[in-house]
Amino acid sequence: MPIERRDLLLAAASLAVASAAGRALAADRPAGYAIVGLGTYGLGVIAPQFANCRHSRLTALVSGDPAKARAAAARYGVPERSIYSYETFDQIAGNPDVDIVYVCLPNSMHAEYTIRAAKAGKHVMCEKPMAVSVAEAEAMIAACKAADRKLMIGYRCHFEPYNLEAMRLARAGAAGKIRYLRSEHGFIQSDPSKWRLKRALSGGGSLMDMGVYSLQAARYMTGEEPIEVAARESTDRSDPRFAEVEDMIEWLLKFPSGAIASCLSMYSANQNHVLLMGDKGRIELEPATRYDGNRMWTGRDGRAQEITPPPGPAPTQFAGQLDHMAQSIRTGAEPIVSGEEGLRDMKIIEAIYLSAREGRAVRL
Amino acid sequence: MPIERRDLLLAAASLAVASAAGRALAADRPAGYAIVGLGTYGLGVIAPQFANCRHSRLTALVSGDPAKARAAAARYGVPERSIYSYETFDQIAGNPDVDIVYVCLPNSMHAEYTIRAAKAGKHVMCEKPMAVSVAEAEAMIAACKAADRKLMIGYRCHFEPYNLEAMRLARAGAAGKIRYLRSEHGFIQSDPSKWRLKRALSGGGSLMDMGVYSLQAARYMTGEEPIEVAARESTDRSDPRFAEVEDMIEWLLKFPSGAIASCLSMYSANQNHVLLMGDKGRIELEPATRYDGNRMWTGRDGRAQEITPPPGPAPTQFAGQLDHMAQSIRTGAEPIVSGEEGLRDMKIIEAIYLSAREGRAVRL
Repeated sequence: MPIERRDLLLAAASLAVASAAGRALAADRPAGYAIVGLGTYGLGVIAPQFANCRHSRLTALVSGDPAKARAAAARYGVPERSIYSYETFDQIAGNPDVDIVYVCLPNSMHAEYTIRAAKAGKHVMCEKPMAVSVAEAEAMIAACKAADRKLMIGYRCHFEPYNLEAMRLARAGAAGKIRYLRSEHGFIQSDPSKWRLKRALSGGGSLMDMGVYSLQAARYMTGEEPIEVAARESTDRSDPRFAEVEDMIEWLLKFPSGAIASCLSMYSANQNHVLLMGDKGRIELEPATRYDGNRMWTGRDGRAQEITPPPGPAPTQFAGQLDHMAQSIRTGAEPIVSGEEGLRDMKIIEAIYLSAREGRAVRL
Repeated sequence: MPIERRDLLLAAASLAVASAAGRALAADRPAGYAIVGLGTYGLGVIAPQFANCRHSRLTALVSGDPAKARAAAARYGVPERSIYSYETFDQIAGNPDVDIVYVCLPNSMHAEYTIRAAKAGKHVMCEKPMAVSVAEAEAMIAACKAADRKLMIGYRCHFEPYNLEAMRLARAGAAGKIRYLRSEHGFIQSDPSKWRLKRALSGGGSLMDMGVYSLQAARYMTGEEPIEVAARESTDRSDPRFAEVEDMIEWLLKFPSGAIASCLSMYSANQNHVLLMGDKGRIELEPATRYDGNRMWTGRDGRAQEITPPPGPAPTQFAGQLDHMAQSIRTGAEPIVSGEEGLRDMKIIEAIYLSAREGRAVRL
């Protein structure tokens, strides 16, 4: 959709009378977000992004660290009464300034806080991966459905200009018939104390972190759902960082069209790359899914032409994501990356781990 | 080895008294090659390369097409008496100008002509893949051993400056501890009449063609032998090109160090790429294994520094390959890419096909 038309639709939507049942958003005020979990992502990345939003604002904070919460509240203009601890979290039900709870906690806490937020009558934005199991993901979807609340997963790449343009080009046939996709994401995980390296908190290693980007890219670039996965893991268990979770895991996905995706995640080398190949050409992104600085090329054999995409739906991918949820609530539409979308990934993630464990292909 | 030292050794070797038993090469004349098979590669690529050689010359031609052979003989100064047909091929035994038979035939004919050449008392250079089965490869090695003749496989990348420098950098630890290698080779196979698409001649599809480059790169870049393979094939069998052989095949190799290689070959898209990643950085080649125009970069996250390698052992990779065989005969040393090296690839290739067929990992 051209940017002008998208803007018009967004503007029209923001003027429309809210159609959702229950506590619908008034058209004349931004949606209020509570961030749960003031870590690197919640406080360091998301909190500053409300300054880039048109339809969203930060109205509450949930943290186990009162001093940190107070400092953040002061910085972002959140009133002291809208600071919660994990113990008082459920009282957020009575806070009319909070429409959406954004769960930025370690993976193993996503299900609990999503379900508690839904029970408190709040819509939920939950970071990816949405849970540590399919069962949890299904419980989260059911809880939000029962409470008539929306559930969106924080798949920021769906609001990132390079990835949006890559999807558009792929659908428009710029590469011809899609045959092969490769997506690799990794970085050198240097701090052994990180929660991501504790299985009880993360649910897994690089796959439950950067691997989600590789998997997502395989799906949104091909536009297909995989029917089979074959995975292999390789981890040096004597490395103190990897006592509990995997370092490197690679998986092949087979799609109904015959296209194949080769995906990788790792914690022992730096990589951020997506390559889509078809019988007419290719679309390549490197870095592909960073916060900024992404680049893209098309070509027949290599990087023939560098592509500058049109602007995304908001000044940053994060603002686009936050405002999309606000607008979804207003219009009653499902978020484009709903809980169901997160569940699809969780089912594949479980199959990847199963395949790696048993050394066999797993049908999806 | 620095280029100066390599040159000195080559010079010393060329002055040494030949140590091989039987019809050893005199030090004062280049080795004489007979090209068997005047197709795109034998006539189009190899024949002109003797002009770049210091230790090799073209002295005979074997072809089923007398007119083509006569024209080529005239062009390259091969006497008419040194033209053979497939029927008269064994008479090459009596030709003192022929030291080496270079088998440039379709894959399924490699074994027969290698064995006949050895029985005729000639050393053999055989194109890759060396055969269509492990059994054939073993028979070829045995025949050359019984005849006390050398057998070398046409792995030109071992004489190509970019690949040589990449191997050197990898061994020198430029990427740190090697964790992951990706190697993809493909092109759009547009002519359905090509022998490579006939199973009886090729023994297989893209794997038996460009796939050998992906597999070789995985082995020479890591410097390890794989212990396990898991492969998946994807071919549109309704495509007339792929009625008999595979289009796209992907395989994961696991190495003893824990490193993983993700390899691909395909006939439905263009790709020529090798990436080695370690915990300290990377070595990337794209194109990686072309006749010329290869490029290489090192970096921590991406293509930070473009590398210009030192010159290779000869003006071209083909001349380096041809002269290496000549020098191996003179010095009595085994070629660096002997029949045993070809056999290693054949064993892995059979395992790749087995894994793809049965949908399970195969131990090597």
